[in-house]
Amino acid sequence: MAVTTATETATEIEGGPIRPVGNRLSIVMFSGTADKFIPLGVLAQAGVAMGMEVGVFVTGFALQAFTKEPHELPFPTEFAAMAPAVAQGMQAAHVDSWDVMLRRAKELGAKVHACSMMSEVMGLRPDDFGDLVDDVVGAATFLHDAEGGETFFI
Amino acid sequence: MAVTTATETATEIEGGPIRPVGNRLSIVMFSGTADKFIPLGVLAQAGVAMGMEVGVFVTGFALQAFTKEPHELPFPTEFAAMAPAVAQGMQAAHVDSWDVMLRRAKELGAKVHACSMMSEVMGLRPDDFGDLVDDVVGAATFLHDAEGGETFFI
Amino acid sequence: MAVTTATETATEIEGGPIRPVGNRLSIVMFSGTADKFIPLGVLAQAGVAMGMEVGVFVTGFALQAFTKEPHELPFPTEFAAMAPAVAQGMQAAHVDSWDVMLRRAKELGAKVHACSMMSEVMGLRPDDFGDLVDDVVGAATFLHDAEGGETFFI
Repeated sequence: MAVTTATETATEIEGGPIRPVGNRLSIVMFSGTADKFIPLGVLAQAGVAMGMEVGVFVTGFALQAFTKEPHELPFPTEFAAMAPAVAQGMQAAHVDSWDVMLRRAKELGAKVHACSMMSEVMGLRPDDFGDLVDDVVGAATFLHDAEGGETFFI
Repeated sequence: MAVTTATETATEIEGGPIRPVGNRLSIVMFSGTADKFIPLGVLAQAGVAMGMEVGVFVTGFALQAFTKEPHELPFPTEFAAMAPAVAQGMQAAHVDSWDVMLRRAKELGAKVHACSMMSEVMGLRPDDFGDLVDDVVGAATFLHDAEGGETFFI
Repeated sequence: MAVTTATETATEIEGGPIRPVGNRLSIVMFSGTADKFIPLGVLAQAGVAMGMEVGVFVTGFALQAFTKEPHELPFPTEFAAMAPAVAQGMQAAHVDSWDVMLRRAKELGAKVHACSMMSEVMGLRPDDFGDLVDDVVGAATFLHDAEGGETFFI
């Protein structure tokens, strides 16, 4: 079985004569359980490493992970028994936490937008968000920007 | 921090010299918990407001939200304690319920398709669906129509 | 109400003068609850039947469904009461189990990749995966391959 690590892949792709992808990766981040933030960080970081424009639209319960006041993110009920093993595995594999990955993606150009409507529904004002959030926009803006690219709803 | 409301954004985009997007928004609606229907309504409504062709493919537990016989949609276990606050916030922010948003999207051209296979699995006949459902089709039809557009799995 | 079954649709589309779609369907399979594997199988099978290149990137809790050692996939808490009815409905409607559908999709060209990072986090080595998994790759490879096609996060 062929095995390619994320690092080897990025190196191989960046080192070759491959065109800049010039593409866009747009993620709606809705789910608020702790596990779902790992793919958010991984996809955002992999996207910018690939030369993609990365935009994240944070809405729903996920907004709570982006406030200055910290909120504990619940683990999904069905997999609660696995939470300690996943945390240990993250540490053993030297995998950064999701916010470190997302911050690095932002340093390379990723943008994080909070949903204006759900912010209002959840009683969150722009000043309530930490510095991972670039601005507060509507869903129409997100859909407009996402045109022609890869789109995921997490 | 820049703040743009959904309404302002739509106005700004529609008022400007921006081309019709002419793009397509295709959503697989599988999840059946109550919270996930909010982004369904918001994205569908924002999409048609942007001039996108919007198609929703309803399958899995989400089918229960589209039957004539009403089903109560469960709130996700992990966030059950937040259900009253979200409901109050929706009212305070004058946010329409998901079915009102989806109905308005349909008036502007959005289409809602029920998955033929999962309908059969769940014992639902075409006549069991309410008027939000336009027709009952297979997944291949949905994938065909979704080509070239933005795609989300909720 | 117009009703089209999945089979009729595929036949109709394949039988007509319609061009090969030549498009790509890329699925991130993260969720590990039993219900979410049905749309994985259905979409993968419908995609290859449509002539699409299908790629599945397995990560998170979903990895447990692809190991040689079998793991029981939990049903989502909110719909646990419906598990027996869904199982009966699958049988009554002669719907194949998800792994049968995915295997058939693979026979027609679909590829299944396990996420290198999450495999390491969960202590899974390449040899731990069954024959549904083609290789172990990084997220950057997946994003690169997904360019220009339909993308879903399940």
